[in-house]
Amino acid sequence: MNDIQQIPALMARIGAQAKAASKQLARASTESKNVALNAAASTLRSSTEQLLEANKKDIEFGQNKGLSGAMIDRLLLDERRIEAIAESLEAIAKLPDPIGSVIAQWDQPNGLNFTRIRVPLGVIGVIYESRPNVTADAGALCLKAGNAVILRGGSESFHSSACIHACLVKGLKSAGLPEEAIQLIPTRDRAAVGEMLTMSGVIDIIVPRGGRSLVERVQRESRVPVFAHLEGICHVYVDGGADIEKAAAIILNAKMRRPGVCGAAETLLIDKKIAHKIPALIAPLLEAGCEVRGDDALQTADTRVLPAHDSDWGAEFLDTIIAAKTVDGVEEATAHIAEYSSGHTETIVTEDAGAAEYFLNIVDSAIVMHNASTQFADGGEFGMGAEIGIATGRIHARGPVGLEQLTSFKYQVRGDGQIRP
Amino acid sequence: MNDIQQIPALMARIGAQAKAASKQLARASTESKNVALNAAASTLRSSTEQLLEANKKDIEFGQNKGLSGAMIDRLLLDERRIEAIAESLEAIAKLPDPIGSVIAQWDQPNGLNFTRIRVPLGVIGVIYESRPNVTADAGALCLKAGNAVILRGGSESFHSSACIHACLVKGLKSAGLPEEAIQLIPTRDRAAVGEMLTMSGVIDIIVPRGGRSLVERVQRESRVPVFAHLEGICHVYVDGGADIEKAAAIILNAKMRRPGVCGAAETLLIDKKIAHKIPALIAPLLEAGCEVRGDDALQTADTRVLPAHDSDWGAEFLDTIIAAKTVDGVEEATAHIAEYSSGHTETIVTEDAGAAEYFLNIVDSAIVMHNASTQFADGGEFGMGAEIGIATGRIHARGPVGLEQLTSFKYQVRGDGQIRP
Repeated sequence: MNDIQQIPALMARIGAQAKAASKQLARASTESKNVALNAAASTLRSSTEQLLEANKKDIEFGQNKGLSGAMIDRLLLDERRIEAIAESLEAIAKLPDPIGSVIAQWDQPNGLNFTRIRVPLGVIGVIYESRPNVTADAGALCLKAGNAVILRGGSESFHSSACIHACLVKGLKSAGLPEEAIQLIPTRDRAAVGEMLTMSGVIDIIVPRGGRSLVERVQRESRVPVFAHLEGICHVYVDGGADIEKAAAIILNAKMRRPGVCGAAETLLIDKKIAHKIPALIAPLLEAGCEVRGDDALQTADTRVLPAHDSDWGAEFLDTIIAAKTVDGVEEATAHIAEYSSGHTETIVTEDAGAAEYFLNIVDSAIVMHNASTQFADGGEFGMGAEIGIATGRIHARGPVGLEQLTSFKYQVRGDGQIRP
Repeated sequence: MNDIQQIPALMARIGAQAKAASKQLARASTESKNVALNAAASTLRSSTEQLLEANKKDIEFGQNKGLSGAMIDRLLLDERRIEAIAESLEAIAKLPDPIGSVIAQWDQPNGLNFTRIRVPLGVIGVIYESRPNVTADAGALCLKAGNAVILRGGSESFHSSACIHACLVKGLKSAGLPEEAIQLIPTRDRAAVGEMLTMSGVIDIIVPRGGRSLVERVQRESRVPVFAHLEGICHVYVDGGADIEKAAAIILNAKMRRPGVCGAAETLLIDKKIAHKIPALIAPLLEAGCEVRGDDALQTADTRVLPAHDSDWGAEFLDTIIAAKTVDGVEEATAHIAEYSSGHTETIVTEDAGAAEYFLNIVDSAIVMHNASTQFADGGEFGMGAEIGIATGRIHARGPVGLEQLTSFKYQVRGDGQIRP
């Protein structure tokens, strides 16, 4: 597959197969989808040896490419991780099937009955980087929502993803579902990504999962709608009316639970009214090894605070660093957020119900919280079951993208001979 | 505004103003939006003379341009039509405000409370052709849903639209809302449309309203998501289990009530089992002056039927012409629809509940009906109040695009100090 001219033909074939499979999937029963997912989980477990073998090739490829230790770790599979992948397939089988569920139903005075009912989106394209488990998770979520999916894995996880994909296909076959329901692009050639982004008549939604440069490229080039977030520049605002102990715990958790996830706090805003409480608010952070870059008030309050620069506001550190400043109440806090936020997740800590409601209403992010850690920005924590990512766009899916967000709907209109006057 | 280089600067300014206005609009009270709409209606009524004057200029322009009589009629305003525009502004004021309404609410076991609440989409771009009333309708609907809107009217209705727009702006001012909430592009230069289609960071949704060539261009070139339908190739399928009288009435209404609307039937499919009923089914159509292009069975049944050609299947006549053929039951009917439909609206006529449910489930169009005329494909008939168009895309808005479809949502999460384990 070295000939670049073969890529458009390859992708056209994959697209046509996906489209055809999507028609069958739209009618597939919940049971058959669950059989496929559970059979894929069993096959995965019984293919542990082959998968470890395939993963070894990927690890060698990655080491030759000079990948960092962290990247190699993302790539690495072991028996425990393979079992976790199998369990997540079974967990998706257990989620309620969104297809066919009634979103709304009403009658009109002329006797027509309207039902808004969930149907699949159609064909979903998922473009991801090194973690091989995304092959299983994304494939399974799209399948459960009745969609055909075209997976484009990272070149580093090429062999592992191919092996996981083969297990998914076995699951599909054993359930009598079309094996083209889950396709993995069988080449590392980057031109395939470019093709995917232009397949607007074939692919209904593209979901990029990966680092900033991948998402940026997809958002810039795609002719197909995209569900994604580019950055998670999440803010914690501690209001004058905050319970300081609660606030300190939320700050610590929002930043340090996992500093590298998109829901991790990157900026801390503190109401000037409680400037004297700054030491208590940031001490746990500093003691946990977080670098705090603050304004004058912060630096005065604790000598361990480093000076913040203009570039720190709106920066996505994804690391044990936080920018912090004092603001003049909830109005200045929300103005700062309007300017610097990426529209992902923000939280206010306060016991003042008025300030909380103001913040919840004014802040225009996908997820706005009160007295809770920004790290709850996750489909599982929302009770949606699994998710394929978080979207910050304003169309269709905003916030966690779970099974329901991977569906469309149609109107069924039932009459008994009505004609329009 | 003849210098093409001025257009990007003009559009950038309009875009920035819209964005700023959208922030204010998102917080605007229902009352202030209604005050603006009602004041615009009053201003419109008291500006009847100026509007008729402006419209006269447009009519002269259109006549010089050699527009057809039908096109001139679309352009024409008289006192009755101006009153209708004012009334439709008042009707939109009376619709319930979607903003702030709770779509869903639930608790998680850890005590977090989740609310999915409606917020505006942001900035909407509407590109339309000759009918000047769209200036009022589109502006008012976008405003009521809390959005800023950039209107690009047809060059033929330039003066009329400018006059209507001035009334809307007066309404905004009298309600204390930003006048940039509803902007009309003040030039006929077509380059402005090209600019709009690339303003993806500024405009959240583009709604094209007009003929096929406009929608086609917008769908092809837009970098911004589009709510639209390219064609309305609607099918009526008369099943073997149909009540023939009901079917004949539905066929007649679906085609002839208004043959030129997107919900008009273009193809009639008749179950072979009731081939002997063809004369009764199509007689009312033929007597109403509709040309029927049929297969052999149709031609045999009634000598007035002309032969259908391959190009008639999937054709959008938008005229008093219908293509008709016999099919082997509901399965062949749905297969034909899957091949030729544009995904807009299809209906089955039958008393057989099983056939009806099969059709309602299998047909993958935005609107699928049973025993009702396809001409009910309209937001008003759905009970949505006004609509800005019908969408056949699968994302966000599908079917009639009313107030709710012009909104987005966000999640408000309320806790009492929860941190994520």
